[in-house]
Order: sequence, then structure tokens, then C-alpha cells
Amino acid sequence: MKKMKRSARLVEMTQYLMTKPHTLIPLTTFAERYGAAKSSISEDLAIIKEVFEEGGTGELLTLAGAAGGVKFMPKCGPDKALPVIEELCTVMEQPDRVLPGGYFYITDILGQPALMNDIGRMFASAFAGREIDVVMTVETKGIPIAYATADHLNLPVVLVRRDHVVTEGSAVSINYVSGSHKSIHTMTLARRALKERSRVLIVDDFMRAGGTVHGMIELLYEFNAMVAGVGVLVESEDVPKGERLLHDYVSLVRVGTKDSNERQLVVQPGNYFDGVK
Amino acid sequence: MKKMKRSARLVEMTQYLMTKPHTLIPLTTFAERYGAAKSSISEDLAIIKEVFEEGGTGELLTLAGAAGGVKFMPKCGPDKALPVIEELCTVMEQPDRVLPGGYFYITDILGQPALMNDIGRMFASAFAGREIDVVMTVETKGIPIAYATADHLNLPVVLVRRDHVVTEGSAVSINYVSGSHKSIHTMTLARRALKERSRVLIVDDFMRAGGTVHGMIELLYEFNAMVAGVGVLVESEDVPKGERLLHDYVSLVRVGTKDSNERQLVVQPGNYFDGVK
Repeated sequence: MKKMKRSARLVEMTQYLMTKPHTLIPLTTFAERYGAAKSSISEDLAIIKEVFEEGGTGELLTLAGAAGGVKFMPKCGPDKALPVIEELCTVMEQPDRVLPGGYFYITDILGQPALMNDIGRMFASAFAGREIDVVMTVETKGIPIAYATADHLNLPVVLVRRDHVVTEGSAVSINYVSGSHKSIHTMTLARRALKERSRVLIVDDFMRAGGTVHGMIELLYEFNAMVAGVGVLVESEDVPKGERLLHDYVSLVRVGTKDSNERQLVVQPGNYFDGVK
Repeated sequence: MKKMKRSARLVEMTQYLMTKPHTLIPLTTFAERYGAAKSSISEDLAIIKEVFEEGGTGELLTLAGAAGGVKFMPKCGPDKALPVIEELCTVMEQPDRVLPGGYFYITDILGQPALMNDIGRMFASAFAGREIDVVMTVETKGIPIAYATADHLNLPVVLVRRDHVVTEGSAVSINYVSGSHKSIHTMTLARRALKERSRVLIVDDFMRAGGTVHGMIELLYEFNAMVAGVGVLVESEDVPKGERLLHDYVSLVRVGTKDSNERQLVVQPGNYFDGVK
């Protein structure tokens, strides 16, 4: 390995850590990679740690001992996330987003990869302490959120389909009742997509009563898997009393309508920010 | 702004640039951010440029003059990409991936966000020189590839749906013939999803004769938009002579079957690597 100057090494280590989140990297990996002493690597890591933690990029966890090393955990806590979500609320409040039937147009928002990255970092923060094996969502609109979250947690994504797709092999299907419209839907997961006893983080773009998420949880039981957490970008407050199917979840945005005028939305930060404001 | 030491500044600038690809950042932004002279910032950028370009992370483009600044362009050229794709070919060659009807199971591969990131960086490299406004794909399996590509190019994603979805508002639908099975399908794009005269990079996970991509191109005409490029992760070589609908595209992987045994796949690097091997 060629020797690098400290300045170049800091740049290289920063980019290396950022592209490998939630991965334990032994100090010897860096020492060999840069032909440097472990003590120099430790000094470099201290500098990176300070910048990452002060700037709100994430935490650098150092584990001592033979099995030790360093792990970068991307973070975006409520304090840091609030300005991003407040700006998003303003965008979501535009009245032309309300479609016939009370639906809500956010496809353009979900089409912004940089914003999805931020949102993924928020969910990765919210669920960083839990043991999770995979991130799950149901097609279609939750997909970018699931990938952004999984990317920051270094986990695979499992995708539930609405129909049984020929390119997936044998599959398990369940029927579920959509809470808000009381209609029956089907969701399907390929047999080989999920291992037994997996701990699953469920994410989705929008939740009203929670019927779809509840359906995914029932699907997990078919695989002897379990829920490790639920995160939704937008939760609707327009749920009749007693009809909410789910109570333990993290939401980033809350949407309600003013009684007097259904076209006028009230959009506020979700329960992720409950302690902050 | 608080003053930072050079070492801390290098870490902070590296992470700042990496999270803002294909974005022109004026030197004054950095100078003000770190309370440093422009000459110091230029020296820092020279160090970062060298590390990024030698390590294959990407290019750092410096534009001089009043409207000048620096732009990070993530790159993963054929040389750097080949080992990643060769490993992927080995994984894809497993015989249990062939499903009834000649379909090909790659859902587990598409479920790996870190790999999708690499693939997105390859497409961002392949199309970095073109003028592109949006990245487009059709649901479902191409979505992670589209987001990873768009993320590295700092562009929005436009998603074509199979059905008209109530949450999208008014939409344009077209019918198209799937080249490989000669069956008729529908695809739909929301009216407000794409501006007229947009230059569109189309990406997808799998292409046989090219019917689906061809359908997306026809849909573009309805919006007075134009194709800026086509990228597919996997192209199938099992296309009867004269039936290929598309000739100008970038593929990362090529799949064929041995005549003698349809369950035995031959998987090789795609045309992105034609000059390399």
C-alpha cells in the first residue's frame, strides 16, 4: 500500500466511511490501506468524529479491543430534521394537491432523490437502536423511502407486491381490509424473499387508518417474522375515532383537513418531532 | 462562521461535496462556511480532487471566473465497474434463478441498496456528458436503479405506472406490445409528472426485445419530451433476429441461455464494458 499524507488520508477515510454506513471497520483495515500506524489512524478518526457529530452528519462509534473498529451511523435527529420537514410541510400544503376522493398528490415530492435521502436518514436515526434484518414496503410509492432508509442502515429491502408476479416464483398472498375505504385488497410476498424469524422495519409513504401496514404485519406472521418498527412519511389525521389500527409508529408529517373546507389542508411535522417543538 | 483547522475542513468539505453531486458550489460558499481564504479553499480542493480521481470516486470539476466554483461528479467507469459486475454475473448465473416461462429471478439482487448505489454510479458515469432533465422508469423493479442513478446525477425521478392510479390526477395512457411475448400492455403517466421538452434518461432492470422501453419512448412523444439515453441493468440475448426494437442503449449485464439446456444461463458483462475486455 502506498503511503498517504494525513490530508489525503482524511479525505479518503471520510469518503470510505460515508459509503459504508453501519459497517464495522477494523482499524487494521485503515492502517494497511494507508500504510499508517494505528495511532495515526485513531487521531484521524477523532477529527472525523468531531466534524461528523458537530455537523449532524452522524455518529462515529469506536469499539475497542481485538474485535474492535469504527462504525459510521448516519443520523438526522429531530432537531436537525425539523427545518427540512417544515419546508416540506409548506410544499405539501398547496391546495392543488387535494385530488377527487380526498387523495393527496405527493408523487413529485417522492420523485426527489436528495429529499428521499434526507428522509431515509431520519428513519435510520429513529430506528438506529433497534435490531433489524430487513426494511420492507409495499409497492409502489413507499419504495424510494424504503431504499433510502435501508441504504443508511446497510440492510436489504424486501418488496411486497400487489399481485403475484411471474418473475418472483412461489409466493404467499393475504387479503386485507383497507381501513379508510373498507375495501378488500391482496398483497403478495415471494417465498424466497424473507427468511424465517427476520426482524422487519416496515416503511410506507402514507398511512390513514393503518390497514396497509397492518396487512404487511399479518404477512410477516406467515413467514414467522416480526415487526421491529413502523415508519411512515405522512400520516393522515382524518381517521374516525376507534378506527386506527396501529398506534406504535414514527411519522414525519401529519396531514389534516379543515372541517369547513376539504380543499384546505393543514400540514404539520409528525410524531418524530413531538419532543422538539 | 467559526474557523476550522485544515484537517477538519477537509473532512467537512469531502462530506459536503459527496452529498451534493452535480451541483455547482461557488468557492465563496466554502470560504464563508469555514472562515477561510479562497486560496486555502483552492488548496483543499486540489487535495480532494486528487484523492477522488485516483480512488475512482469521481471527478472534481473546477470552473474558473465569476460564475465559477466546483462540481463533484460521481464516476464509476468501465475499468472500476468491471470487478463489481463480474461478481454480479457469478451470482446471476446460479441455475435456480430460471423460473417457469423462462423468467429470471433477480429480486434479491435488486433488494441490495449498496449494489444499487454502485449501479447508479455506473449509469451516472455512462451518461454524465449528456443533457438530462429527469430519469424515468416504469414500475416496479426498475425503481431502485432509477433512484440510484438520479441521486448521483442530482435529477428528479419520473415513474410510469402500469395502471391509472387515483392518487396521480389526470394522466396519459398508451398501449404497447411487449416484444418478447407479443401481448398488449398499458402504461400511464400523470399529466403533471413531466414538463414539455424534457430530456429524459430511461432506465430499467431488464430488457429483452425492448418493448417496454420502446413504450416509454412513445409515451415521451405524448409529452413532447425526448430520449436522452437508455440504460438497462440486464439485457437478454435471446431475441430472434430482427425483433430487437432498440439498438442505442447501455447495458451492464448480458444474459443468454445455452441451446442444449435452457436452465443453464450464460451471464456476461454488458456493452458498457465492450471496450475494456
